[in-house]
Amino acid sequence: MQEIKVELTQNPKQKPADESKLGFGKIFTDHMYIMEYNPEKGWHNPRVEPYHAISLEPSAMVFHYGQEMFEGMKAYKTEDGRILLFRPDKNIERANNSNRRLCIPEIPAEDFLNGLKKLVEVDQDWIPTQPGTSLYIRPFVIATDPFLGVRPSDTYLFMIILSPSGAYYESGLDPVKIWIEDDYVRAVRGGIGEAKTGGNYVASLKAQVKAHDEGYSQVLWLDGVERKYIEEVGAMNIFFKINGKVVTPVLNGSILPGVTRASCIDLCRHWGLEVEERRISVDELVAAAKDGSLEECWGSGTAAVISPVGHLRFEDSVMQIGGGGIGPVSQKLYDTVTGIQTGKLEDTLGWTVRVK
Amino acid sequence: MQEIKVELTQNPKQKPADESKLGFGKIFTDHMYIMEYNPEKGWHNPRVEPYHAISLEPSAMVFHYGQEMFEGMKAYKTEDGRILLFRPDKNIERANNSNRRLCIPEIPAEDFLNGLKKLVEVDQDWIPTQPGTSLYIRPFVIATDPFLGVRPSDTYLFMIILSPSGAYYESGLDPVKIWIEDDYVRAVRGGIGEAKTGGNYVASLKAQVKAHDEGYSQVLWLDGVERKYIEEVGAMNIFFKINGKVVTPVLNGSILPGVTRASCIDLCRHWGLEVEERRISVDELVAAAKDGSLEECWGSGTAAVISPVGHLRFEDSVMQIGGGGIGPVSQKLYDTVTGIQTGKLEDTLGWTVRVK
Ligand SMILES: Cc1ncc(COP(=O)(O)O)c(C=O)c1O
Ligand SMILES: Cc1ncc(COP(=O)(O)O)c(C=O)c1O
Repeated sequence: MQEIKVELTQNPKQKPADESKLGFGKIFTDHMYIMEYNPEKGWHNPRVEPYHAISLEPSAMVFHYGQEMFEGMKAYKTEDGRILLFRPDKNIERANNSNRRLCIPEIPAEDFLNGLKKLVEVDQDWIPTQPGTSLYIRPFVIATDPFLGVRPSDTYLFMIILSPSGAYYESGLDPVKIWIEDDYVRAVRGGIGEAKTGGNYVASLKAQVKAHDEGYSQVLWLDGVERKYIEEVGAMNIFFKINGKVVTPVLNGSILPGVTRASCIDLCRHWGLEVEERRISVDELVAAAKDGSLEECWGSGTAAVISPVGHLRFEDSVMQIGGGGIGPVSQKLYDTVTGIQTGKLEDTLGWTVRVK
Repeated sequence: MQEIKVELTQNPKQKPADESKLGFGKIFTDHMYIMEYNPEKGWHNPRVEPYHAISLEPSAMVFHYGQEMFEGMKAYKTEDGRILLFRPDKNIERANNSNRRLCIPEIPAEDFLNGLKKLVEVDQDWIPTQPGTSLYIRPFVIATDPFLGVRPSDTYLFMIILSPSGAYYESGLDPVKIWIEDDYVRAVRGGIGEAKTGGNYVASLKAQVKAHDEGYSQVLWLDGVERKYIEEVGAMNIFFKINGKVVTPVLNGSILPGVTRASCIDLCRHWGLEVEERRISVDELVAAAKDGSLEECWGSGTAAVISPVGHLRFEDSVMQIGGGGIGPVSQKLYDTVTGIQTGKLEDTLGWTVRVK
């Protein structure tokens, strides 16, 4: 494990006074973590520095060929003042899976975790404490060779930045309306869908804008081959409860393997619910909505943790689920996962990692 | 049309002395063009500045969500000292098609062309003149909002940079060996394949590395749905001559509509050759190679203009085409397109645009 140099800021920023106005992803803390890569030294020079702009050649490969990887996770402050990360090993493992697909050199897991902890420790006073708030953590890698040929870059920057984030739901869980997209495609098997990389997100924007215009908050993607099987939501995985069973799309190579998804599956099984990871066609959904066997639907992701889905729209049919309200499994998952994350519930599964 | 401010460099760089050592995309000229976008002013403040690094927040959206568009074209100096662009209107139109797909605001065509011409004029002494050399032009847009939510950025930078480029073929046309990929997928209909954007290129790296390791210079992609139909090469479109007819994959939404492709089709038709834009299955190719009706194969793209393909490999079968040499149509296309580009042949089709 490499030693991290720490340079503290001389000009600390004003911390946001009102935690109800934090929003998401727009305020950044006083410091950031950086590590560099080149073929001679590998990943080297890990350091915590005052948060600052980065300077890159206009020819830097990241601007042209999309060689970029990111992760998303959160830190929470418990009522008794501990700082907890939620399953960071899962994010680090996924980051390196993404890196491999994108021809980015893998990051030693211990340096990654160590950097994460050090940065959060340095900026711990930025962690908000109101219910539902957290410190959002954004690790990312960008390709920096000043070169326009198409090939993997030789040099990279790995950075971590932190953003205090407001409660996703202002007043408790709130069901969302979701648009099932049958025109645009986000990702396809054999492509980069299971990697967390910019190309998948830019591909999603156009449909997202369309869905918003129609009054839907997110897009649910169908597979790119048959345009028939449910994949995932813009920034969440998706679950259904059909006829008493929990069902979620199987990881097929074009879906992001969510950390929250894995945790939902574990918890549901732990509670004795039957969980199926399998293909789910949109026709099956429409039929289940019609005959009443579609009991619940929710999204799972770091941002909202659990997002109950009240309405699904596919082409001209609008499906109301569970009367448009919050189902019992969604609520229990939300309470349990956030309970563990914030230290309110005992972490019997060993999912949290303490900073310091 | 907006007026362009010009600030000339006080520290001109040393120009490369040996034009045979230019390579591709690694040397940049003294100046660059920049224009900014925000919702209030639209695209504004176009300027030519000394080439310099750009400074961005680590949270700039381009690093996270891949909202980036680029183009590629070339300027040539004729023997009598004129400077020519090749069909820049086509690149500008394609740039704005890409922009629409990527939710990037369109760039006024006249400001784009004007910026292009002004920059090339300012750096005209950088245009190499040896046979096969050119000034490569890279226009690109990046999303700059310092924000981690997934949505189209509000602010952007549009830049153009220039790179003197060496001859693609050191000593005349040289056939390449191409690997038909049946495992990884580059793009899929409904996705971003027909946009010129980073996500498509990062998706291609892994197969490209594999093909190189096997001794093949580029990858030929199959469609992402049936994994059966020929799409395009890493940075070229592909043409076949089968039984006397020129055949190229039809633009289906996942293929980049190449400017060189369009020019090849026009020229071939002009010469009285029959040209079909249609689906071509890899099985058809293998069969045509076996029975001798596959007479020629070439790639078309700005970098190499025309790349004769001597060998195609699909799974375990290696197809040698035209004895592995250069076919007559490939040679004639190469001579004609480069002849028009460099002003050696009369531009009867009105394809070139003079700078100044
Ligand atoms: C496309 C996509 N799917 C699913 C998820 C959920 O993953 P996780 O639970 O790890 O946050 C995310 C994001 O966070 C995502 O961006
Ligand atoms: C994926 C891809 N296909 C085709 C082409 C050929 O297009 P053009 O002839 O406009 O250069 C390019 C690039 O230049 C490309 O990147």
